[in-house]
Amino acid sequence: MPMDATDARLAFLSEAARLREVERASRTGSGRRENSAEHSWHLALYAMALGEEEAPDGVNVDRAIRMLLIHDLVEIDVGDVPLHGARPENHDAAEDAAAERIFGLLPGAQGEALLALWREFEAARTPDARFAKALDRLQPVLLNLETGGGTWPDFNVGEAEVLARCGPPIETGAPALWPRVRDRVKAHFTALVG
Amino acid sequence: MPMDATDARLAFLSEAARLREVERASRTGSGRRENSAEHSWHLALYAMALGEEEAPDGVNVDRAIRMLLIHDLVEIDVGDVPLHGARPENHDAAEDAAAERIFGLLPGAQGEALLALWREFEAARTPDARFAKALDRLQPVLLNLETGGGTWPDFNVGEAEVLARCGPPIETGAPALWPRVRDRVKAHFTALVG
Ligand SMILES: [Ca+2]
Repeated sequence: MPMDATDARLAFLSEAARLREVERASRTGSGRRENSAEHSWHLALYAMALGEEEAPDGVNVDRAIRMLLIHDLVEIDVGDVPLHGARPENHDAAEDAAAERIFGLLPGAQGEALLALWREFEAARTPDARFAKALDRLQPVLLNLETGGGTWPDFNVGEAEVLARCGPPIETGAPALWPRVRDRVKAHFTALVG
Repeated sequence: MPMDATDARLAFLSEAARLREVERASRTGSGRRENSAEHSWHLALYAMALGEEEAPDGVNVDRAIRMLLIHDLVEIDVGDVPLHGARPENHDAAEDAAAERIFGLLPGAQGEALLALWREFEAARTPDARFAKALDRLQPVLLNLETGGGTWPDFNVGEAEVLARCGPPIETGAPALWPRVRDRVKAHFTALVG
């Protein structure tokens, strides 16, 4: 039997399920490594809980939620690269090829639309994408703060580097949230040396 | 420092992260048990991939996505009860108390709104909730079909019971999808005895 559009959508969803096996550097409360599927869920919930009151005016929260649900699917092919880790050569091109393959499993126009949404997230030039990106930087910071620094000691990262790497995208995409996160980061590192 | 609305939202998101530790009966492709956070992500992606073309007219797909992102949060307190397992006494009341506690972490009106959205999902009387419920029944069936029957042998469940337990909610909430799933279920059990 030839595949029709519904079969193609179900095949995409089956392939997407592999995101549950992609491990991140971050650890959950129980100490195991977080995977990119549950991370994507948590970020979509961030958008839902913070979007109405803390997103800049004009952000379409439902579009941000959709971006966050698909933003890491390329990791099925290329894996997760930690923010504070070394970025492999040609990583952007490999991610783009992965996006073409994975969204290409969907029927033509639908696959094109999701590929465009993923590229919009990556480019981080629209308010929706900037808000989504800000949450993607914010959640690991809060996870690390809740687990005594989390992955920061593993990557030998101190206050200045955390503020420099996470500050600009959070401040740009979710300016209402940044002062609060910055204060928590500062308090964490002050207590360490105190 | 007293908690303000932003702190309350971040506290809710921190508590919600515990959903990553709630195990379901279903297994992932690698053989470990699926957790309810990644299950919720997968379902939201189902709504995104299937909503535009396969949902009944009038379904608000973005509302269905939001329902699916929060539908299992009560399991942080009461755990997951498998569809084919025994349902503990007073389970509905325990879930409702969990929903009040967890959504109650959010600022007043926002917590009320999410509690109402969760109750709408549970009651499954609106088109959005019925579509979301249909996906919640559909995804485990497809996972089981992809893993040689998955949890069905564990619960001693045959074709008739799968069709009886999963058919009505899927047919009600996503009628366009049911014939296809039914045919796959029938083909699976036919091959088993064949
Ligand atoms: Ca569920």
